[in-house]
Formats: sequence, C-alpha cells, structure tokens
Amino acid sequence: MKTEREVKIRQVEIRDAFWTPMQKKVLDVVIPYQEKVLRDEIPDVEKSHAIENFRIAAGLSKGEFYGMVFQDSDVAKWLEAVACALALRPDPALEERADEIIEIIEKAQQPDGYLNTYFTIKEPEHRWQNLYECHELYCAGHMMEAAAAYAEVTGKEKLLHVMEKMADHVIDRFGLEEGKEHGIPGHQEVEIGLMKLYRATGKEKYKDMARYFLEERGKNPDYFYEEKLKRNWQYWEPYSTERMDVSYNQAHKTVYEQDEAVGHAVRALYMYTAMADLAGTDGDERLFGACRRLWENIVEKKLYITGGLGGNPEREAFAGNYELPNDMAYAETCASIAMVFFAHRMLEACVDGCYADMIERELYNGTISGMQLDGKSYFYVNPLECVPGVSGKAFGYRHALPVRPGWYACACCPPNLVRMITSLGKYCWGENDSTIYSHLMIGQKAELEKAEIIVETAYPWKGETAYIISPKTREAFTLAIHIPYYVDFSKEAAEITVNGERVDAPALMKKGYVYLTRKWQVQDRVEIHFPMEVRKIYANQQVRENAGCVALMRGPVVYCFEETDNGAGLQSLRIPGELKAEANFCREGILKGNVLLEIEGFRMKGDGELYSEKPPVKEKQRLTAIPYYAWANRGENEMRVWVPEE
Amino acid sequence: MKTEREVKIRQVEIRDAFWTPMQKKVLDVVIPYQEKVLRDEIPDVEKSHAIENFRIAAGLSKGEFYGMVFQDSDVAKWLEAVACALALRPDPALEERADEIIEIIEKAQQPDGYLNTYFTIKEPEHRWQNLYECHELYCAGHMMEAAAAYAEVTGKEKLLHVMEKMADHVIDRFGLEEGKEHGIPGHQEVEIGLMKLYRATGKEKYKDMARYFLEERGKNPDYFYEEKLKRNWQYWEPYSTERMDVSYNQAHKTVYEQDEAVGHAVRALYMYTAMADLAGTDGDERLFGACRRLWENIVEKKLYITGGLGGNPEREAFAGNYELPNDMAYAETCASIAMVFFAHRMLEACVDGCYADMIERELYNGTISGMQLDGKSYFYVNPLECVPGVSGKAFGYRHALPVRPGWYACACCPPNLVRMITSLGKYCWGENDSTIYSHLMIGQKAELEKAEIIVETAYPWKGETAYIISPKTREAFTLAIHIPYYVDFSKEAAEITVNGERVDAPALMKKGYVYLTRKWQVQDRVEIHFPMEVRKIYANQQVRENAGCVALMRGPVVYCFEETDNGAGLQSLRIPGELKAEANFCREGILKGNVLLEIEGFRMKGDGELYSEKPPVKEKQRLTAIPYYAWANRGENEMRVWVPEE
Repeated sequence: MKTEREVKIRQVEIRDAFWTPMQKKVLDVVIPYQEKVLRDEIPDVEKSHAIENFRIAAGLSKGEFYGMVFQDSDVAKWLEAVACALALRPDPALEERADEIIEIIEKAQQPDGYLNTYFTIKEPEHRWQNLYECHELYCAGHMMEAAAAYAEVTGKEKLLHVMEKMADHVIDRFGLEEGKEHGIPGHQEVEIGLMKLYRATGKEKYKDMARYFLEERGKNPDYFYEEKLKRNWQYWEPYSTERMDVSYNQAHKTVYEQDEAVGHAVRALYMYTAMADLAGTDGDERLFGACRRLWENIVEKKLYITGGLGGNPEREAFAGNYELPNDMAYAETCASIAMVFFAHRMLEACVDGCYADMIERELYNGTISGMQLDGKSYFYVNPLECVPGVSGKAFGYRHALPVRPGWYACACCPPNLVRMITSLGKYCWGENDSTIYSHLMIGQKAELEKAEIIVETAYPWKGETAYIISPKTREAFTLAIHIPYYVDFSKEAAEITVNGERVDAPALMKKGYVYLTRKWQVQDRVEIHFPMEVRKIYANQQVRENAGCVALMRGPVVYCFEETDNGAGLQSLRIPGELKAEANFCREGILKGNVLLEIEGFRMKGDGELYSEKPPVKEKQRLTAIPYYAWANRGENEMRVWVPEE
Repeated sequence: MKTEREVKIRQVEIRDAFWTPMQKKVLDVVIPYQEKVLRDEIPDVEKSHAIENFRIAAGLSKGEFYGMVFQDSDVAKWLEAVACALALRPDPALEERADEIIEIIEKAQQPDGYLNTYFTIKEPEHRWQNLYECHELYCAGHMMEAAAAYAEVTGKEKLLHVMEKMADHVIDRFGLEEGKEHGIPGHQEVEIGLMKLYRATGKEKYKDMARYFLEERGKNPDYFYEEKLKRNWQYWEPYSTERMDVSYNQAHKTVYEQDEAVGHAVRALYMYTAMADLAGTDGDERLFGACRRLWENIVEKKLYITGGLGGNPEREAFAGNYELPNDMAYAETCASIAMVFFAHRMLEACVDGCYADMIERELYNGTISGMQLDGKSYFYVNPLECVPGVSGKAFGYRHALPVRPGWYACACCPPNLVRMITSLGKYCWGENDSTIYSHLMIGQKAELEKAEIIVETAYPWKGETAYIISPKTREAFTLAIHIPYYVDFSKEAAEITVNGERVDAPALMKKGYVYLTRKWQVQDRVEIHFPMEVRKIYANQQVRENAGCVALMRGPVVYCFEETDNGAGLQSLRIPGELKAEANFCREGILKGNVLLEIEGFRMKGDGELYSEKPPVKEKQRLTAIPYYAWANRGENEMRVWVPEE
C-alpha cells in the first residue's frame, strides 16, 4: 500500500470551519508581515536585511552582509510560503514582488552556480570550508523547496533553474566519485530540497544526491572534526581542536545504525523526512526500516502528548527516553511541523493510520500552538506547563516564555507555520492506481485523479463527516478513509454509511483505514459518525513528570487548564476518577468557536503550613479546560496539561 | 526568656550512638585529610596552596599566589575545626602543627594589621578596592572565628591578637565617622567573626563594628555599583559599567526592610545569624523583629523538608516563594549548616521550640547528607530527587550530582560540616540565672554552671531519653527540656516522669519546652517517653513539585526511597492512604544501625504505551525507605523523598 501521486495544493480547496479562518489569517496577516520584516520596513523588530543581502551579492546595492550565516533561508521560506499562498488565492501584486526577488536571487548566483550571500559578500575564500557550522547546504535546501513550490504553483521556472544550477554545483563538488569531497551538511535540509527538485524536474541525479547525503552521513563520525582541523577556524566560537559531539546533528552513526532519536530535533526530523521520502520513492525497504526504528523510538518514548518534540532545551534537542519535562520542555514549533513532514512521507511509503494520527496530533496541537489566535505573535517553545514568574525567567526556564513574542532574530518557526497551514491540502490525500486515500477529516473540495470529492465535516469538534463523491471514471475504485485511532466501531454510536446504508465498518478496517470499494456514482455519499467523548489519558509510568497525573483529550485535541478559568495553583486541582465532562462551544471572547470542557473536579486545600501531617481537604470545583493550542491568548497566566488525578 | 551564657564545646562530652561515631569519623578521617589537602600532599585533587600562600606572604617562601581570591578562608576553617577537635580529644602533635601555621599567619600580617595573602602577594595596590567581589572581609571573618575558637579551647591567644589587630585595621578604615569609608562586605561573614571576637575579648568595639556592617548594608543599594565605577576594574569578569542585582548579596534594602529571604543562601543566612546574635546580645527587639520576619518567610515558604535551603541552582540562591524543585534543588550543605547557626542564635535570643526543632531538622537531614557515611566524600548540593542519567548531567541538573565527589576546588562545605559536628555540644544547651535549657536530645555528659547532667537517649531512633541531674547548687532551678514539635502529650503513650513519677506534661509545656522547677537532688532522674511513629507529611498546595505526593518522617528523620531497595521508576510507587509502616534497625551493610521503614505500598503498572486511555493497575509492593541523609551510599541510583500518595 503505497500512494504514488503527490497531491498538489492546487487540487484542494479547504472549506473548513477550523482551518479556513486560519488560512485566511496566514494570508492576510502573516505573509505581509513577514515580507515587511524581510524588507526592513518594520521598526522595533530585529533587523532582517535578508533581501538586501541578496541585492548586495547581486551587485545591485552596496553594503555589508548583515544577519545570521543562514539569513538567506528566511527569503527562501517566505518565497515557499508565497507559492503556497498563491495556490490558495491569486494575488498578482504579491506574485510580481516575488518575481522581482527571484530576479535578484538569480543575479546573486555566481557563474559556477554557487548561491549564498554570506560567503559571496563576506568571505568568498571560505566557501564550503565549514559545512558543520555554516549552513550553505541548508540554505540551498530551503531555496530548492521554494523553487519547486513556486514552479508548481505559478508555472514560472526561473528560480527552479537557479537551484538546478546550484544543485549541479553541489553535485560537482560532493560525492563518492574520485576527486569529490565526502561532505555532508551540518544542518540537514538539502536532502528534502533535492527530493523536491527531483520531483519538480524528474532528474534522477537530484534524488541520487539526496541518497548520497543520507548514506554518507555517519560513515565517518569524525568527518566534521577532520574538516575543522583542516580549516583552522570556527564560525560561532573561538577555534579549538576539541572533538565535537556529532550525535547533536545525527552524524554519529549511519542512518541505518541509528535507532534512537537524538540531538537537535529539527535537524533529526528533517533528515528522517528525507529518508522516508527516498524510501517511499525508491521502494527501499532497508531505508524504510531505518525510518521505522526511529519513528518507534519517538512515538514510544520521546513524544509529548501535544506532539511536541525535544525535552532538552539546551540544544533544542531530544532528551533521554521518557524524559519529557512539562515546564522545561523545548517542543519547538518547527520540530512539530517537521514531524508532519516525516509522518506524511511515512504515509506515502506505507499507508498506516498511525502516521495520519500523528499528522492530526500535530496539526491540532503542537504546531498551531506556536501562533497567537490573531496570527501576530509566535512561540518557538511550546511547554506543557507554564508558571508566571518562573517560565521565561528562572534558571532552566528562560526558553519557555509565558506569552508569545512578536518576532525572533532567528525567524524559523513563523514561516514554517505559514507553509504548513497554506499547504494543508497536500496532507489530506494520497492516491494510487486503485485507491484514493483520505488521511484527514478536513472540510474541502478536492480534485483528485479519479474523482472530485467534497468533504463536509464538523471535525475536530464533532465526529460527523460526509464525503460526497463525483467519480471521473466508470471503473470501480477504492476510497480508503482514515479513521482516527480513538474511534471504536464496535460501539453502537459509531457508524459508517454509504448513501444512508450502514456498512460493516470493523470488517472493512485495515491499519486505521476503512476501505470502501465500488463503482462510485455521482453524488454518492459516505458518512462517518462517531461520538466525540472526552478521554482521560495516562502517561507511561516511566515518565517522571506525569506521575499520578492525567491529561484530557477530545478527538485529536489535547486540552489544558489555565489560571484564567480555574484560579491560581493549578497543581492543587484534581481530575476525578469517574470523569464527568461537558463539552460546549465557547460563544464569546477570543476562544469563540472552540469547544471547551467543563468538569466537576476538585481543589485540594491544605492548612497553610509548608509541611503538615494534616491531609489536605478536597473541595468541589467546576473546572474548565481549553484546547492546548489556544493557551496564552488571554494574557500571562498559569497553564497545565497534566493534572493530578483524584 | 533569653539564654545568657554560651555553652562551650569543652563543657559537653557527647556519648551518643548516633553522633559519637560521626564525631570520631570527622576527627579520624576528615580533619587529617583536609590538612593534607591544604599542604598539597594529596595527588589527584585540585591543588590548594592555601598554607603556601601564607608562607609566601610571610616572606618564608618564594612563589606566586595560587587559588581563589578567598583561598585564605580554607586555612581559617580548618583551624577552627582543629580547635573544635582539640576540645573533643587532645592531640598535641596536631596542636603543634596548628601553632606553626598560626605563626606563619602572624608573619603574613602586614604592619598596619592587614591580613590577606591574595592582595599582599599579588595586588597590594588594590587592597580594599573591591569589597563586592574580593572577600577580604569574608576571609577576615572566618579567621576571627578560628581565633576565638582556638583561644577558647587551647588558651593560646596569638591568633586572637592577630585578628584583633586586623579588626582594628578594619575599624580604622570603615564606619560612619568622618573620614571613614561606608563600606560593607560583598560576602557577609565578618559580622559573625566580629561578634565572636567581641565575646572572646569582651571589647565592645567589635560588636559595634558588627552592628555597623549590618546596619549600613542596603542603606545605599548602589554602594557596590559606585565602588565599581570608582575602581574601574573587576575581578571575576571583564569590566562593565552595568548595575548589579544586589539582592544577590542582600544589599538591596536595609536589614530592617527585608522581609523575604532572597539571593545567595549562605550569604543571607550568615547575615541573619549575625543579626540574631546581635539582637539577642543587645536585647534589640527591632533587630529581632527583622530576624523573625526573615525566619518566617523561610519556614513558611522557602524550606525543603530536609532543611535544604536554596531552590535556585544558578546563583546558589533562594528561589521564589514555594518554588522548591526536588530534582533541581541547590540546597547547599553550607546553607543548612548556616541555618543551624541562625536557629541557634534565635534560640539564644528567645527560647522557643521552633528554633530547636529547626536545629534538629538540619542536624539529622540536610547537613549530614553532605557527607558520605565513610566521611570521605561530600555533597555541596542536596537534591530531594535523583535520576541517574539526568542528575549531574542534563541541562538544568549539572549541579545536582548523583554521588558524592571526593573534594572540590571551592572547599567550603566539608570544613563547615567538621566544625558543626565537632561543636555539637554548643547547640545542646542554654543557661541563664534561673534555668538550664536542653535544646537537643543527644546522649552526653554536660558540665553546666548549675549542674552536671548526663543524658542517655536512643534518639533519634526511639523516643526514650533520661536526664540524670547532679546539681551544683542547693537553690531551686528550672530544667527546661525541648520537646520536639511532633510529640503529643495528650496521648497516653507519651509521658514525662521525674524519679519515676509522671508529671502533668501538657500543663508544664510552654513554646515547645517542658519547664521542671525544683530543688534538684543528686541522681534525680527525668525520663521522657514518646512513641516514635512514622508520619506522613503533606506539602503546602502551593508547592508545585509535591502535588499529590507525601514524604515520610519518623522523629526528626526525613526518609527517602532508593532504587536499590525499591527498583527503578520510583515515580510509579504509591504510598497508601492508610499507612502501615514498620520501623526496623538495619542489621548489616553500610546502613547498619539506621532505622529503615518497611511499608505495604504499591507500584503502578501501565500497558507500556507512551499515552493510553487504560488506567495503570496497582500492584502491591513492599517498599523500603531509608534516612535521607544516608542516600547515595550504595552507588549511583534513583532517589526520591516525595512519592505520590495512593
């Protein structure tokens, strides 16, 4: 079961009560704001200079390079976001401005294909000497993604040609062949870019190069160390001959030998994404096995319930197995987005509901928690517990801010969110010769090869979804619909009907998908109904931080408790053993439209002593839980996902 | 109720099953080891050079200064420990070596009285320019303490005269008088030293100078900032004109205005100790009120159950109210020792059982946890939860080592423990014209002014203590015995008898002491019996880290659970609501002689999923708890004080 055709953003028009407003917000607020930042038109935020760097490198302007060594990638990410935006809603003025920027990029490219403004402007003699720290391949990877997206949506191939030239330059320089360097990127990403370039151009050499970078990695764990000794300088720190810990960027073992997700989470997940893409594309079982081992380590031992990834804030990294601190979590927005990419590539390689479930977990929780409801401010770090006065301030907690700031010097998460939200359609479907796979229950109109399908749904708030099918073929084909893991068709209330007739859902289920095969007729209607119950979730006993606690979920949505609704001292709340919860739409205020939970719970009250033999008494308290992703939208206040059970 | 006479170490001979072996260990192992370290005779430990620094300053040796700017204080602390040791057990050879060192110190003193090897050897032109960072007054304070102790025990006053000369030099330089600088110490300690010098010499000027330093502090919160701007250099860091946060060393407000324990815990507690000493000595109600406010903040909001102080590892500092992380605790051994000093001075100023209870809490828990049972290795940091692989290793946890190391470059805690353990007798008693106060139930023979008293006790393991009194006067006097706060005489099993006759204990109790007044006869015998039950302790609901958890105490001893006895994953253990605990003496192994607890508890077992709707099941497990102070004596393993309640 492999989906063979990538679905394009253009094929899908999202018409969804949850996602359409979010897409609109991203188009109306975020993309224009980011453009202004890149053009240095916004006062009081960290200067970007990213477009100006390209102008200087192109000889169109005079000046010095300014910004991070990977500043170019901000332009790449924005261009990719623009491509996705244009797929959703034409905007000739925006497209013209993007075209102009692409022309500057083309002029900034060197005659040999090399493209990177930092080295071109500042240290041309040091090109390619510091793969470990200097992100040349990383920036190239993002620009390849932008080029592929821009070509797909607008049909314009200028940037694609620029990046082909750059990719050819990279291929000339690195590889196993005689005379080439055995280089690998310090920050993985070019592998994803090369796979997209391969798909956009059909040229195998780009896929081969992606395979080279993936398979070369970790063969010589001292590669970066030897590179450093050879070059005699460092970018971020004073030069030292100390050996580096290359598990940080997953270069400690070959990808086939790695069986634990370690190091910088985003680097890791970008690598796993490319591995899964290549495994699926080439039908490479061995590589898929490597992906699967890493996947299992993550989902069994290193994943926050919100989909957050990275329990070690120091290096934005995975922590040890079961080390999932709530208040000190890193759980970078970009890591959750990268997990969507990884899960999507796994799903393409092997249709299994566990991957679609992961995309859902990320989409409704740990990714969009990164954005304020108004689209104007962003979290990098998505903790599962917030304590004003400690979070963002105290030792060990400075990274875990209690409210979303407006912008960051290292602006990776906001544009990453933009491209995920605008390209949502891509994650909804898979298709091959026999089957259409519906991965996500999102309201939309989709133009697939075998059918046009309209999806109407109240998901994630209600388990009621209808698929209205207009086939484009008279042949029978299969519609395989992903059923979320928590739905139980052995219960009476859950059912699937086709044109009003109930089908034997359990019998038709395989690995999280219900397979409906027939000669579909125009206006055939599949309905899926299931009760949306509040679920009490227990963490593995090895997770220290969640001992004695439970979290609440309803559908794919993880809930949290905020001080605003429940008073201070959330640790003294108790979820009752016998849970009675009401789920109600919020009718007013910033949370309007979200389903909130009301629970008859308790609050423990002590005698006021710091230490006492007197047990605290239990007082009834009506508790309110809100969707986790919407936390910190009502000012700085306490928040907690895991609450002690009575 | 004020105790007027300080009891001297010499007056008390400890004969106690718990403390005598500990004193012996300190005399036999720790003091000789420390001497070897100071003399640079131990390979593989951080070089000390502390005695050699004095030799160089004295002109007896050539070379460079080596070590911390406060290296001199290591010699001072060792000399004080030697004085205490000599009070316990004569050792002419040791005394001779100490005398020789004192002669070197005398020679290192400058003609104007100044004593500090760092500045004398290295930067004589920079003397007294950097009170904020350079510890000249701190070192002087420790040497004054050593001088007073050495004179008290040996009768030799050479070091006392040296330190009087130094104190006079300090008095000439600092003060409110015309022409003097309004200086205050960067690290408080000289205030304690001056009070001891006052008591050793009877000279009021030293007490006045202690008062000056205490009362000048915080009057000008910019004092250290102005000092920095004037001097134009810094010791620890490159020079900057940035303003410092002087709440770190409690110079942000006057001592009368401070009502929250903030900043570096040891600095704070040394200051509070001197404040309480001065308040008691002068009968200064206003100053005592200031002490009391700080005391209350600590015991109500900032104290670990073990007596640990300092929840903020970054600056060895107090954290916010109720911020008491277990695994990230700092809880420095020295801070707990300083709390013994503070509580003892409070007790002298105002007899109240709460202070004696605090001394007990510290003596049986957070102080001696700093020393391995064999006396050969030490903890600075005393966490209440240890997780191998995380503790001592992961971000946020590097300070909290899982096992005691042999020695430290900054060697403050081991000698501090030595002086506390050797001078234990001082904390046992108070005396004034009418009353003898027994603060602690420790087996001993004490020579007090009004009586010789032999105490026989099985404390802390059993609540059985006898006081055998041999009066030295025919007049009636009162024997006031501190009864630990957890003893309840309204229960039948608890009783006090005098010569076998039960007295009406509740009627005779006042603020934690039972007052027995009579014309005492030779061999009068007071017996105190109370049941020693295992107590389940709940933390204030505002302590996030202990939500849903309980800790166990028996008598003054806090217990903990170790992996060695209970298996890994201590967070999955549960203490039953109805506690049934057996207390048994450990008969073998390293913990022999300690009372261990056996509890019918539970372990929660989940289904192995990282997140599951299936509640974990409760399996019975017999749990073993050991005294907290004895943790980490059986290799690196998990430890936990607070365990979830069923």
